[in-house]
Amino acid sequence: MDIASLETPVPVVDLGIAEANMARMQAYADAHGLALRPHIKTHKLPGLARRQVELGARGITCQKLGEAEVMADGGLDDIFISYPLIGEAKAERLAALAARVKMRVAVDSPAALATAIRAARHGHVIGVVVEFDSGAKRTGVTSVDAALDLARAIKAQPGLRFDGLMTYPTTAATAAFLAEALPRLRAEGLEPAVLSGGGSPQAAKTHELAPVNELRVGTYIYNDRMMVAAGAATWEDCALTLHVTVISRPEPDRAIIDAGTKSFAADIMPAGLQEGYGHILGYPEARIDRLSEEHGMVDLSACARRPEVGERLRVVPNHVCPVSNLHDRVAVIRDGAFQGFVEVAARGRTL
Amino acid sequence: MDIASLETPVPVVDLGIAEANMARMQAYADAHGLALRPHIKTHKLPGLARRQVELGARGITCQKLGEAEVMADGGLDDIFISYPLIGEAKAERLAALAARVKMRVAVDSPAALATAIRAARHGHVIGVVVEFDSGAKRTGVTSVDAALDLARAIKAQPGLRFDGLMTYPTTAATAAFLAEALPRLRAEGLEPAVLSGGGSPQAAKTHELAPVNELRVGTYIYNDRMMVAAGAATWEDCALTLHVTVISRPEPDRAIIDAGTKSFAADIMPAGLQEGYGHILGYPEARIDRLSEEHGMVDLSACARRPEVGERLRVVPNHVCPVSNLHDRVAVIRDGAFQGFVEVAARGRTL
Repeated sequence: MDIASLETPVPVVDLGIAEANMARMQAYADAHGLALRPHIKTHKLPGLARRQVELGARGITCQKLGEAEVMADGGLDDIFISYPLIGEAKAERLAALAARVKMRVAVDSPAALATAIRAARHGHVIGVVVEFDSGAKRTGVTSVDAALDLARAIKAQPGLRFDGLMTYPTTAATAAFLAEALPRLRAEGLEPAVLSGGGSPQAAKTHELAPVNELRVGTYIYNDRMMVAAGAATWEDCALTLHVTVISRPEPDRAIIDAGTKSFAADIMPAGLQEGYGHILGYPEARIDRLSEEHGMVDLSACARRPEVGERLRVVPNHVCPVSNLHDRVAVIRDGAFQGFVEVAARGRTL
Repeated sequence: MDIASLETPVPVVDLGIAEANMARMQAYADAHGLALRPHIKTHKLPGLARRQVELGARGITCQKLGEAEVMADGGLDDIFISYPLIGEAKAERLAALAARVKMRVAVDSPAALATAIRAARHGHVIGVVVEFDSGAKRTGVTSVDAALDLARAIKAQPGLRFDGLMTYPTTAATAAFLAEALPRLRAEGLEPAVLSGGGSPQAAKTHELAPVNELRVGTYIYNDRMMVAAGAATWEDCALTLHVTVISRPEPDRAIIDAGTKSFAADIMPAGLQEGYGHILGYPEARIDRLSEEHGMVDLSACARRPEVGERLRVVPNHVCPVSNLHDRVAVIRDGAFQGFVEVAARGRTL
């Protein structure tokens, strides 16, 4: 079967490009003494997660228990859930995972810590890191005092192991927090083995940004328009493209493609970068300027050459991670040849 | 099992509210002589589609062949695909559907018409309407001349039946197009049996807006924040709410919920309406002001009462249709009691 005969819209992963992206990040981590712990949210495929570990990654990162369960089923045996788990049901599922594989979780509140404590009662040691905020204003404690309180509480719990600190993303604020926190932790005998930072766009500057020793990155395996805009990748480094078809050309300046928010997600570009919802390879002046659920509206007014109805286009999405989450399967190619479909096993695992 | 014991994030559908919404729209359509042909994109559930037909709907509307295939499997026997189908693979699938159920498709180009012609060669009559643009600048011909050309070509084809015209949404431009097109069609003996308009926010004004005789609406069955903002529904009419949990309270003015773009979709509100990604019932001053994939950041600065970590919240999403598409299943309640989970059978059917 030829890739051009697959019905669209279809996400297509070029394994050769993904391999090169994995090798490059692993080499960077090795060169700078960073433990690479890839975030599987980008691909959601146990096969690629196993390949990341084969190449040298020290375990993986998941956001939700449901993702971790899929990855444990797929043979991954060292999993970090970088997300606060709240409630009894989550504690029971964490305990079941810890009975099968090496587990680490992040906490940023006494309630999240209580989940880990409850899970550890089942007898399997769980590593715990304290999440701090380095500017994302998402989860994470906002003071060193709060981090110390949690670190002490973790250390005091039988069944839990205080592993260190984590944040997202790695920034100058990460370095400032660590400069204050590390001496105070060490003064109390709370040596943090793990200092974990993340974010693909700034990954290759991690060693300059902050003294972290673990690198949690996801997007680098596929790359996307945000990575290119950040100067962290080229179009040739983009391993996942969405193949679409022009289904209408109602006006000279407008094409409609068969992919909207159900295929691309509506993630817009960060302010200051170019507008639109994706980059059409071969038509750099075309702008996907609006999306509805199944329609992508393309402004062709700046294009010399224009695609006709029925033409297939390859689009690099703004943010590739939600694209994986929207599709039940991806088509895989190597050296241009179709290898088959792979089920996106951890798709939709939001629980 | 109690609804409050379900793990979050979980979409919950209140069947009583959905029933009332269905009955109200059917009554409106009946009162104004409109054939109701609901768009299943909102719920993607064969069970609710069958209920819409039981209550009086004359068939259903789908956007993609994959949705139509699921609905035909679910017992729906009169299906309109309101979307241009392009290419041989689509023609073969359309032919297979036409052999099972009554099919109608929309075309806006000779290429889309060619798909219908190819499908009809298999021996089952296919109804065809011409899509025209009424201001959405999506698909649809932009001139009456182009509509006439397509209508003539449809009528000339054995195996195809010229059914009429369609557009989305119903607007004043719809009326203007029809005022020009109808006399010209009739002068050539091209009587359009179907004049199909759509859009839930303006549905109850359809009879004032344009002389259509078919009403394609989807969102009305669940309603959402856009419908409330448009004055077309109240919060009490919102049948689907996303149940979420507060997983962090890192600062007094900020709560983090366990649902982001993977649960809500990032559809923002139309310009001029209130900002944010959803309405938290019971916390009307709270604003979901940022989403990442698994985090929803809630600004509490305007709230007198503030939720704590572990508290469950119910959120009315901005746009409910993508929420159905993001979840494998929905929880169903009636009179507050949990009835079970229903698989979102047509989820992700973008092909």
